Amino acid sequence: TMADSVVPSFEGNISFNAQHSPMGAFMSFTCGNFNTRGGFGLQIGRPGNQNLFIGIKNGDRYTDTPLRVLPFYEGAAADEAARYTQQKDSPASKKLQPYERAEIKRHYGWASDRWETPDFSFTIYSPFRAISDPNEVTFYDDLRPSVIAELVVDNTNGTTPKTAFFAMQFGESGVRLLDSGSFAGDLANGQSTFAGFAFRDQMGVAAEREGWQEEGIEDYKREPFVFNRFDLASGLLESHRHHLGTTPGIGIEVPPGKKRVLRLMLGAYIGGVATTRLEGKYFYTRGYRSLEHVLLDTRADFDSLKSEAVWLDLQLLGKGLSGDQQFLLAHATRSYYGSTQLLDVGGEPFWVVNEGEYCMMNTLDLSVDQVFWELKQNPWVVKNLLDNFVRHYSYTDQVKTTSGEILPGGLSFCHDMGVHNNFSPRGDSSYELAELDRLCFSYMTAEELCNWLLIAACYVSEADDRVWAKSNRHIIDACGESLINRCGESGIIEFDSTRCGTRGAEITTYDSLDHSLAQTRNNLYMATKCWASVLAVQLLLEAAGADKNDVKAFSLHAYRAAETISAAANADGFLPAVFEEGGSPSRILPAIEPLIYPWYWKSDAIRHHTSLYKALARHSELLLKDKERRNYFPDGGIRLSSTSNNSWMSKIAIVQHVIKRILDTVLDHNVVDDLNKADAAHVKWMTEGESAYWACSDQFIDGVARGSRYYPRIISACLWMDHRDDEQESPESEAVGESEQ
Amino acid sequence: TMADSVVPSFEGNISFNAQHSPMGAFMSFTCGNFNTRGGFGLQIGRPGNQNLFIGIKNGDRYTDTPLRVLPFYEGAAADEAARYTQQKDSPASKKLQPYERAEIKRHYGWASDRWETPDFSFTIYSPFRAISDPNEVTFYDDLRPSVIAELVVDNTNGTTPKTAFFAMQFGESGVRLLDSGSFAGDLANGQSTFAGFAFRDQMGVAAEREGWQEEGIEDYKREPFVFNRFDLASGLLESHRHHLGTTPGIGIEVPPGKKRVLRLMLGAYIGGVATTRLEGKYFYTRGYRSLEHVLLDTRADFDSLKSEAVWLDLQLLGKGLSGDQQFLLAHATRSYYGSTQLLDVGGEPFWVVNEGEYCMMNTLDLSVDQVFWELKQNPWVVKNLLDNFVRHYSYTDQVKTTSGEILPGGLSFCHDMGVHNNFSPRGDSSYELAELDRLCFSYMTAEELCNWLLIAACYVSEADDRVWAKSNRHIIDACGESLINRCGESGIIEFDSTRCGTRGAEITTYDSLDHSLAQTRNNLYMATKCWASVLAVQLLLEAAGADKNDVKAFSLHAYRAAETISAAANADGFLPAVFEEGGSPSRILPAIEPLIYPWYWKSDAIRHHTSLYKALARHSELLLKDKERRNYFPDGGIRLSSTSNNSWMSKIAIVQHVIKRILDTVLDHNVVDDLNKADAAHVKWMTEGESAYWACSDQFIDGVARGSRYYPRIISACLWMDHRDDEQESPESEAVGESEQ
Repeated sequence: TMADSVVPSFEGNISFNAQHSPMGAFMSFTCGNFNTRGGFGLQIGRPGNQNLFIGIKNGDRYTDTPLRVLPFYEGAAADEAARYTQQKDSPASKKLQPYERAEIKRHYGWASDRWETPDFSFTIYSPFRAISDPNEVTFYDDLRPSVIAELVVDNTNGTTPKTAFFAMQFGESGVRLLDSGSFAGDLANGQSTFAGFAFRDQMGVAAEREGWQEEGIEDYKREPFVFNRFDLASGLLESHRHHLGTTPGIGIEVPPGKKRVLRLMLGAYIGGVATTRLEGKYFYTRGYRSLEHVLLDTRADFDSLKSEAVWLDLQLLGKGLSGDQQFLLAHATRSYYGSTQLLDVGGEPFWVVNEGEYCMMNTLDLSVDQVFWELKQNPWVVKNLLDNFVRHYSYTDQVKTTSGEILPGGLSFCHDMGVHNNFSPRGDSSYELAELDRLCFSYMTAEELCNWLLIAACYVSEADDRVWAKSNRHIIDACGESLINRCGESGIIEFDSTRCGTRGAEITTYDSLDHSLAQTRNNLYMATKCWASVLAVQLLLEAAGADKNDVKAFSLHAYRAAETISAAANADGFLPAVFEEGGSPSRILPAIEPLIYPWYWKSDAIRHHTSLYKALARHSELLLKDKERRNYFPDGGIRLSSTSNNSWMSKIAIVQHVIKRILDTVLDHNVVDDLNKADAAHVKWMTEGESAYWACSDQFIDGVARGSRYYPRIISACLWMDHRDDEQESPESEAVGESEQ
Repeated sequence: TMADSVVPSFEGNISFNAQHSPMGAFMSFTCGNFNTRGGFGLQIGRPGNQNLFIGIKNGDRYTDTPLRVLPFYEGAAADEAARYTQQKDSPASKKLQPYERAEIKRHYGWASDRWETPDFSFTIYSPFRAISDPNEVTFYDDLRPSVIAELVVDNTNGTTPKTAFFAMQFGESGVRLLDSGSFAGDLANGQSTFAGFAFRDQMGVAAEREGWQEEGIEDYKREPFVFNRFDLASGLLESHRHHLGTTPGIGIEVPPGKKRVLRLMLGAYIGGVATTRLEGKYFYTRGYRSLEHVLLDTRADFDSLKSEAVWLDLQLLGKGLSGDQQFLLAHATRSYYGSTQLLDVGGEPFWVVNEGEYCMMNTLDLSVDQVFWELKQNPWVVKNLLDNFVRHYSYTDQVKTTSGEILPGGLSFCHDMGVHNNFSPRGDSSYELAELDRLCFSYMTAEELCNWLLIAACYVSEADDRVWAKSNRHIIDACGESLINRCGESGIIEFDSTRCGTRGAEITTYDSLDHSLAQTRNNLYMATKCWASVLAVQLLLEAAGADKNDVKAFSLHAYRAAETISAAANADGFLPAVFEEGGSPSRILPAIEPLIYPWYWKSDAIRHHTSLYKALARHSELLLKDKERRNYFPDGGIRLSSTSNNSWMSKIAIVQHVIKRILDTVLDHNVVDDLNKADAAHVKWMTEGESAYWACSDQFIDGVARGSRYYPRIISACLWMDHRDDEQESPESEAVGESEQ
């Protein structure tokens, strides 16, 4: 067994939550933040509602000694304080003694999360890999809704037995034990090497001792044992299990002179129809028939799952990223998978990424940031997303000028596909509302059109899928026409969708930042994005085998947009956030975000649009080398807009990569140093204070996660591993984990 | 339309919750208690978690006038207070104005619950009937998981429009509108006469205007309209519906000169496997394929459902019961049905009554009290229960004497079948634990054996099912032997089951009353119950066609038990609660509870056991005419044990009936007066203070519901309608509502 983690111990605040999630199950087992509840969260955008008791006591299970536990439960802080006070009336074991912070080391890898105490180590493994395209071949185990964990107690030098345990206190009623009958003949009541507990038929934990087959079982009935009473201490002390109990657990006795490894399988299962309107079941239900089936199958694969996780840990360590970057990427990967949901809708796969705490489904302006990871791992989900937007969540509109004139519009896409497992009506998002003038919940028609085009171009370029481009030629044409129709002579978005109603005007994905980023028309960020989207149309048309003449109009349009942007610079080279009378004082880094696309496509845009690149480089330089440091927070974190206290980690990750890989002319020693210090600040944003409860979040207001928490989008940080300009590193572009299959 | 309720208005505290429940769906729509949440509760033993906004505003939906509502939401009390303060910043309609108590009248019938305000009336109808035996013929609409309601606004004399609404604010995420696509072509988006909203695929409300087919639709798009925003006021004022909204609702405009009736269908649907171990689906899923299907089918039956409810209201009014008794029975009926659950386990029906707030499944000591109602309504569920206990939840034990001697025991039954939709392992209850000496959670082996026998005898006697008795002869024999084995020479229970372990001893269903009722052996209540159970064996053997000799042993045993009880009386005729050294000072009314069975069977036991009846009559007389009134609470409520502040409504109901119908020799003017006053006190127990939140409860400590809340067992009060000694009233013995089919 691998006793020591390959991952160095985390040097910051170790009390932070992490999502431990399988792929496509919209499930997390979340823990790590001290003094709060967590555990299983199914189909929710937040940590679960269970207290976790993971620990050890000296003596066998019936010995009345204190229980030393990881502080993963509500009240842990009070219990720690109580160690120093008298508790005369209760037996010793009622005194839960959480470890102090200084007694715990945490090793946070890409796919393992380990806590080491003086008495034991506890590790959760959450390996990920490419999800096989179900239209080609289905490995259901890609989708197995479970993670694994190990509780290791080394009593080799001990002279008395120790008892280790993993128990949970559920916030809702519905606990049951997994024993007789649960495993349909495979395992017998109370005498099994495999035992566990569950919450109804939806989530559960099973365990067995590693190596019992080879080493033999000394006390057959006790390895491991399950318990269930109203409290943890009684569960361990009382052999009679109470089916009314609220604190089920699994224990194992470790004889003196022995080392014991308790293997834990943490699984979930939602059978039947899980979504409305478009009625979807979890795709894993095609391969797994029940929670018990999931747990048994996880047990069978335990060794390889653990190896996969360790291999992934090593992979990340070998990517040449700083420790801070590694942390952010590992954190982002977990949060992304916790939000993923692969459905079976009418027999066809349907890929959904839920929007973190908000649970909107396939929010398209998140998809566009997640595309880099998805194309690396499993390009077919991107195609699936593009097709589903066309089929179910597209619409056509007209556009209106600020003077109220109505002009032709065209095809665009909804902001999202629904919320909380309820698909929206066809052609409607859950988010957008009419009659709102550049306010939250208004339409994002222009930006979502750009997003679909950019995703499509990334997909076609990365997967080299010309067949898809050809068969979607009519969509590409319609999108191209629609995009042009939204632009004025300037070549950038000037008009709002008639979907906004008479009073309303469109917003961008930066809806909750300041006004400079909220408005769509004549907006610097949207201008650059529009320019990139026109290039996307070009790319798609070329891939579809279009006539050069058909492409040319877009080529010309791109030049016009580029020119408009470059021309907007003031004498210093600063680009205003809004190209309108009155403008905006905001200094916005998102101006450069769209440069990621031509780079990602390995396009030669940089050669054709030199002045645009130069203008954006100059703009960036002004912002990054600003003596007032208006685009940095006091702690060194990056401020996307100089006039907002709100900054988004997912977008920062892209902007950082654009600076380092594309606008690298602006890099000098100070800028590099600032960017590295920013990473360190961002790690603190994630792990300190109230943010730590929400695992990986996106929106930070003055460094505190106040919105977009528990979020998938930060996976855009995967770009940091992407060196597509260095040809010799091409193996990196393969899906991570794919070689394991 | 029936404008006026046939039910007189309730004169007590009208702020109390009532469960409005279909049959067998483990679902309630609960409301009525002011200032708290309620609404849909599915598979839970408590009110739902939604704020209900039922009310009206002057003007059309877009008019900004205050919203007058029933106070069925958290914060209603504060809103009422705020009416008298200034709220300058918010629009008028943001000011929710709940009606004051004095402005509301409530009419609480057997199957209707109506609130009348100066502006509108709102009525929920929850008709019930005999549930057809699915083994014979299945009317799925018996099991349709819905109730109906009406919101009536009479604007005949008005000169401006009014807008009525029914809206809910959900405590969890997952709201959706029922419009396009929801009703699969039956109804069109936003233009329907049938509209509504839902929570995921589990619960929902749909509505239509009564009589639109005949009267025509003036404004097709607005009758009714659905809305959904973050708050009620915005939902009404804004025509654009937000799928992220948390407060969906249905509204209808009432033009001046018109009266409008908004019909509401309140439905639930749980598809797929709902229970574990024994994997059961709701039986209604055989007849209904979705929530939408339930709502549409409810709409189709609206007229007859309403008529059924009104007919039931009239039935109760005609039973000759006092107003207090009618209230208690109506309250009990609702609570009972809210706890019922008819499952389909492997293709066979499986009847479950959940134990109120505790959600234990088929608690056998509740079943024995519910048998009177179930046999009146649908005897097949009782047979189903008896069979399922034998098949899945029976066991055999030995017994032990207080000196530790082990003797033969026999067959008995578990306390329950599981908890919170998790069936227990075969042969185990969720409740019982070993090694507890006459404490809560110990075994109830002897009492559950008695309960099974008493239920079986009631079933065989009432349904005259000799075929069942014959085919279960071996079970009856085994139960008889087991019962005798638990008794000593005294003929009453003297021994404890070995299931109690070495230290433990059995308890009775009165586990939480004082010690006098908690212990099983040598207990007065159990002695009488044992005597009745021996008579039950006799009855069953006779029905099974047993030899007279086989019956005779039980006949002799019954005499022995009766003699022991009679002989225990002191000089006054008082029967001590415990027949052991030290005894007990408790004066317990439950001593007479078991007399209900021979009466129910129309047995001639009273002629053969004259001295027992006389002894119990004398005992009752002493308790009822006690000058210290030790078996009454200060408010006049009945105290089951003189030494406990805990009293149970379900058991009081039986004891009252035994006194009035069987031990009527003790009745004099004062006793009758006391019993009537007790009914009035019990109504207050249910409807005042914190108890009012819990709808119908069983356990009252000093008149406050502190346990066994939201409980089904109080349906034992149906005995009050049972005049089986009056031959001329035999039609009463038919199932209530059966003639409606």
